[in-house]
Amino acid sequence: MPLPRQVFIAVIGAGGVGKAFLAQLSHLASNLSRSPGAPTYLSLILLSTSKKSVYHSDYKSLSNWEAELQNSTTPPLPLPQLADYLVKAPGKVVLVDNTSNQDVADSYPPFLKKGISIVTPNKKAFSSTYQLWTDIFSGAANGTGTGGYVFHESSVGAGLPVISTLKDLVETGDDVRKIEGVFSGTMSFLFNSFQPVSGGGGKFSAEVKTAKEKGFTEPDPRDDLNGLDVARKLTILARLVGLKIESPTSFPVQSLIPKELESCSSGDEFLSRLPEFDNEMEELKADAEKEGKVVRFVGSVDVPKGEVKVGLEKFDKSHPIAALKGSDNIIAFYTKRYGDNPLIIQGAGAGGEVTAMGVTSDLIKVVRLLQ
Amino acid sequence: MPLPRQVFIAVIGAGGVGKAFLAQLSHLASNLSRSPGAPTYLSLILLSTSKKSVYHSDYKSLSNWEAELQNSTTPPLPLPQLADYLVKAPGKVVLVDNTSNQDVADSYPPFLKKGISIVTPNKKAFSSTYQLWTDIFSGAANGTGTGGYVFHESSVGAGLPVISTLKDLVETGDDVRKIEGVFSGTMSFLFNSFQPVSGGGGKFSAEVKTAKEKGFTEPDPRDDLNGLDVARKLTILARLVGLKIESPTSFPVQSLIPKELESCSSGDEFLSRLPEFDNEMEELKADAEKEGKVVRFVGSVDVPKGEVKVGLEKFDKSHPIAALKGSDNIIAFYTKRYGDNPLIIQGAGAGGEVTAMGVTSDLIKVVRLLQ
Repeated sequence: MPLPRQVFIAVIGAGGVGKAFLAQLSHLASNLSRSPGAPTYLSLILLSTSKKSVYHSDYKSLSNWEAELQNSTTPPLPLPQLADYLVKAPGKVVLVDNTSNQDVADSYPPFLKKGISIVTPNKKAFSSTYQLWTDIFSGAANGTGTGGYVFHESSVGAGLPVISTLKDLVETGDDVRKIEGVFSGTMSFLFNSFQPVSGGGGKFSAEVKTAKEKGFTEPDPRDDLNGLDVARKLTILARLVGLKIESPTSFPVQSLIPKELESCSSGDEFLSRLPEFDNEMEELKADAEKEGKVVRFVGSVDVPKGEVKVGLEKFDKSHPIAALKGSDNIIAFYTKRYGDNPLIIQGAGAGGEVTAMGVTSDLIKVVRLLQ
Repeated sequence: MPLPRQVFIAVIGAGGVGKAFLAQLSHLASNLSRSPGAPTYLSLILLSTSKKSVYHSDYKSLSNWEAELQNSTTPPLPLPQLADYLVKAPGKVVLVDNTSNQDVADSYPPFLKKGISIVTPNKKAFSSTYQLWTDIFSGAANGTGTGGYVFHESSVGAGLPVISTLKDLVETGDDVRKIEGVFSGTMSFLFNSFQPVSGGGGKFSAEVKTAKEKGFTEPDPRDDLNGLDVARKLTILARLVGLKIESPTSFPVQSLIPKELESCSSGDEFLSRLPEFDNEMEELKADAEKEGKVVRFVGSVDVPKGEVKVGLEKFDKSHPIAALKGSDNIIAFYTKRYGDNPLIIQGAGAGGEVTAMGVTSDLIKVVRLLQ
């Protein structure tokens, strides 16, 4: 593609996703600079964590970000100053937000209005108040504004092409009727192990423990079991099909944290008491089994009814949602064009590498649009 | 998005895909013209079939293409004159090729070099000689050239996001190891009915007849059964991951036309004699059944080995390829990042509406890039 000579990149966050993204950025920058038609130079001009940051007042590229960050004693720039710094860069700027920070998300509207583009897996920007959603897309060039571009493929299903596919369906005029799926790697693993299609499976509390040990849960598993992460993803998808969802708590979300354990003071206390509720879960399993079904934790959007919900549902053993493996996500789009057999996307929906992949492919799209 | 004020569209082909595309174009044009930020006007300036065409020397938009085409007595423009006409349009031009014509495909390189962009489901452009592939992408702005853009999502799996996903995997630096799937709606229907996972199923020749009656085959079913359509799709995917595949006949492709019937003079003669070979197909079915498997017609690319092949394979009944329904396609990408559980895309891979959807979403991408 005939690309711009230089695009400046600023990255916030250097955790699992951030590190994987920086590795992919380095691969991408090398490829784009060697593009025979019109080489493009991606310059990493800022890298910031919650504790420190590294950048140069003359916008010189960071040559060795790992060492520079490690040796840095510079605190992160407050967000307004960050915007000022980026807006004065001698070229187009893309801010890559690899955090899940609400404050950073809240600052997207002013960044976008200043012409700074944003790519991010940060769900909070798109699933908090409807006002924030409106403010973001009324400023963005790919909304109704004239500022920077904003892309967030990895905010649902990590690198799986969920958001781009839904946008394509809507923009080409298909009639999206229902979206249904398993949107959490943790919930996928838990229920695929708790009640495999082939029968058997462990006690629910034991599977939660295993998932935590395997690193499939947040440090405190309650952050997965409360359903909020899934509710945020459904909020994003529902808004993309045009529903005005006020917040991820404005529709029914089933929490898997028993009422009696809501007051536990720590994740460890919660885990130690969770076995008290295994009998309830075993009953659910047995009820489903009687109907030849299995229990799964799903989210769905019923578009004509304007209904969004998140919680446990029973599925026939031959249903693609029942047959899911490991910690995979699955997303089914039921539309007028696709008829009875939905368009299905399936695969790993969490993890640093695949989440970063969604961010990097968004960056490629923005760089091409900025030409 | 801040879009260009006007983009000129020329469409070749007004069959099933062409008609569905024109309906989607009208919906899209209406939406883009009402875009609050920067309205864009898509002007349909030419529509051509193999028999006649309609266009105006002053590039006036076709106001009512159906009536204008019906009343037209103008023959189609020869391709060089078509290029001359389009290149003199007072703005950027996108040629939408909704044919499966080799001559039109062969003319892409000069069109692209003249700055005309192309969107198309025409497999022949990307699956004929490797020289044509090289000529196309050495001229295109999204290849190594500086001409128009070329997008062809619907050349594999119709509107399913197969090509865009594969490009994202490759461009973000994932290591694609294997691509495997069912790439033909006809073959999907035939084998899902011939040997359902639940057992039973009809004789092969009877299923071919049913498929033809339901409109799931080409007018002459031999055009599906020879495997060439699937071979063309595999050629495209293999080239996208960097393999230099000379042509769709340069790797093993299993034809389901028995040797003895290759000389049949008509599709009808072929269909009437096909039952003579039902016993052979029943043996295949029984052999698979003995192993608890089913037979499916698949294509695969083994990237490290550089091997492409198309033909019958046996799959465990629990494999996603075995569980496919109706005439759906399924495509699995095995990559380093996705590990043992591939990224899977599944859904209708044929039909006017969904094929046109891929073309329309490509057009949206090009219009944005042309801004």
